[in-house]
Amino acid sequence: MWPDNRHQAAVLRLLRDGGPRSRAELVDAVGLSRSKLSVDIDRLIERGLVDTVGPAASRGGRRSSLVQIAEATRFLGIDIGATTLDLAVTDGEMRVLARVTEHTDLRRGPAAVISQALELVNKLRADTGTTRFTGAGVGVPGPVSFREGVPVSPPFMPGWHRFPLRETLATELGCPVLVDNDVNIMALGEMHAGIARTFDDFLFVKIGAGIGCGIVAGGQVYRGATGSAGDIGHTSVDPHGPICVCGNTGCLEAFFGGAALTRDALVAARSGRSPHLADRLREAGAVTPVDVSTAATDGDPYAMGLVRDGARRVGQVLAGLVSFFNPGLVVIGGGVAGMGHALLAEIRAVVYRKSLPLATGDMPIALSEMGDQAGLVGAARLISDHVFTG
Amino acid sequence: MWPDNRHQAAVLRLLRDGGPRSRAELVDAVGLSRSKLSVDIDRLIERGLVDTVGPAASRGGRRSSLVQIAEATRFLGIDIGATTLDLAVTDGEMRVLARVTEHTDLRRGPAAVISQALELVNKLRADTGTTRFTGAGVGVPGPVSFREGVPVSPPFMPGWHRFPLRETLATELGCPVLVDNDVNIMALGEMHAGIARTFDDFLFVKIGAGIGCGIVAGGQVYRGATGSAGDIGHTSVDPHGPICVCGNTGCLEAFFGGAALTRDALVAARSGRSPHLADRLREAGAVTPVDVSTAATDGDPYAMGLVRDGARRVGQVLAGLVSFFNPGLVVIGGGVAGMGHALLAEIRAVVYRKSLPLATGDMPIALSEMGDQAGLVGAARLISDHVFTG
Repeated sequence: MWPDNRHQAAVLRLLRDGGPRSRAELVDAVGLSRSKLSVDIDRLIERGLVDTVGPAASRGGRRSSLVQIAEATRFLGIDIGATTLDLAVTDGEMRVLARVTEHTDLRRGPAAVISQALELVNKLRADTGTTRFTGAGVGVPGPVSFREGVPVSPPFMPGWHRFPLRETLATELGCPVLVDNDVNIMALGEMHAGIARTFDDFLFVKIGAGIGCGIVAGGQVYRGATGSAGDIGHTSVDPHGPICVCGNTGCLEAFFGGAALTRDALVAARSGRSPHLADRLREAGAVTPVDVSTAATDGDPYAMGLVRDGARRVGQVLAGLVSFFNPGLVVIGGGVAGMGHALLAEIRAVVYRKSLPLATGDMPIALSEMGDQAGLVGAARLISDHVFTG
Repeated sequence: MWPDNRHQAAVLRLLRDGGPRSRAELVDAVGLSRSKLSVDIDRLIERGLVDTVGPAASRGGRRSSLVQIAEATRFLGIDIGATTLDLAVTDGEMRVLARVTEHTDLRRGPAAVISQALELVNKLRADTGTTRFTGAGVGVPGPVSFREGVPVSPPFMPGWHRFPLRETLATELGCPVLVDNDVNIMALGEMHAGIARTFDDFLFVKIGAGIGCGIVAGGQVYRGATGSAGDIGHTSVDPHGPICVCGNTGCLEAFFGGAALTRDALVAARSGRSPHLADRLREAGAVTPVDVSTAATDGDPYAMGLVRDGARRVGQVLAGLVSFFNPGLVVIGGGVAGMGHALLAEIRAVVYRKSLPLATGDMPIALSEMGDQAGLVGAARLISDHVFTG
């Protein structure tokens, strides 16, 4: 099923990323002679990995010169969030054909969550008429050993430590599977079809229940020596700050993670300092980070203050990382990205003031374009990179 | 002069890194058929890039099966420091054949410093009987546009901004030249022949006049989007700290850079809080970071305190970077590395306590093995990578 060699792999990736092309264009891009590459393209067509396409196909016996990734190609993206299961089926160009989202509770353990996911997969299969997937990518909200395809000591996920997630899903789905940290697949999604399309070196900062960072270096996700790269949630921003679940004090997440924001919102609601959050608490019986986001967007001064304080601390951590990593772009995504301009303005203010001018010269700081599709498209992209290897 | 193709390049790199090998070993390592690779090896011998070697060479007409990088191969490493010019000639396996160090003053501008360097090159040429260099690598103590081979706004180097250093030296030396930041070449040196030999992802932290970090990701130096990656000297460690030359407050260098350490040593000497430094000031009329190092090694409590305070702040910055980058190894080098165990112990204490356990699990923090040769060997290695490309 996989390509025979690196030229075939190059053809598949070009068609995935750029859509249908003529044989002549592919010859130019791959840099092989026309006659040699034709053999490879014919082989890909023979094996059903590539289709001929377009008007040229109707010219009777003459072979078309336009080819595309086989229309039957189907990738599965599974984005396991802290409280949601999000799945999508894409075509060979990573376009989402169908998507389904359901609430979940990771604390029920891997068996229950996988069985829930497989039911959703069946639904997606039916919706899209998919009999087999070319591959599936999976994002997990915690550290992952990428090589082994297992979560490693994920906080908030009891029972998942070293669970053979890749192996189990590969058996169940009958296709190649890769498992990665959720922030890494979000970065990949943004690189494939979002604002990072033209960048080789960039950071994707996810602010949600947790705070993490996807690192792309030289067009590749950088995972670090043991796969934990990008963990910025536990960088100390104030030695006298609140105690964090990790045991240290003053971590970024202890100020601006989902739990911290919920805690601060509750205090603001109960004390009446935020009328908006107080109303919300009365109505719903609880307040969430999304409520803070809504209140801030509606102009509630206290909620805006919470967003700005959190953003300032994110900026503080990012300032050092921008000087260190010198990215071409910083993307802000995740649930809290809904806070939009106030969040972005404060992060920018701190980073542009505190990072080295040389590092920030042409560097944009921007909100994710892919929004809540980043992880799904990225998961599909991840496994397609793997499958489209010669 | 350069290899014709990537197989020849692979042979040259294998011989550079592993020394003489038989043709059979090269066939295994390169993964080409024996007959095909023999053509490439013969071509390399013909062109004088590779020699036959060893006892087999004496077996009359029969061609030896042991080959090595041509003995005539000569690389030049130029390590431009804040106050010194350090040059070495290496053979094709990056062994230093001759070396010369001289005091310099970068403020005299590029023309004067280059002319001083070229005199030293002539001395090295004479010492080693070198008529031509295969290539030269150059390290500069400031930001560099690697692609263009020019320094970019280097602090303490008036007149060097965008000076065409690579071009000038390539013309003068008549060989390919690459220019890089000094910390990057130190990292490369440590990777070639030092403690980082077996690591693909590591950080090389240089503590000297400035504080900087060489980043190696996937076996390659990572330079960032605009070449300034690794600048950690201006990471804020205390918002209420001293004002830094960069205009911000509380930067790492404002606490522990060469100038900061000199300032603190002078205060300690004048106030008599450090008898050792007071003696030194009386004798020499000045105190330097090296004096602090010596005093600390001799057990002067105040000097030891200065080292520990500085090391703690380095550790504070590294703790965040280790969580972010998840390196397999952290190497501490540069002038201040002479402070040895006290420095290392304090850095380790902070990093191991503050970084994520997942990131520090198997991660050693160690002193540079290459010492003051790291930059020279790294500069030679840098240009050899460039020249040995197919």
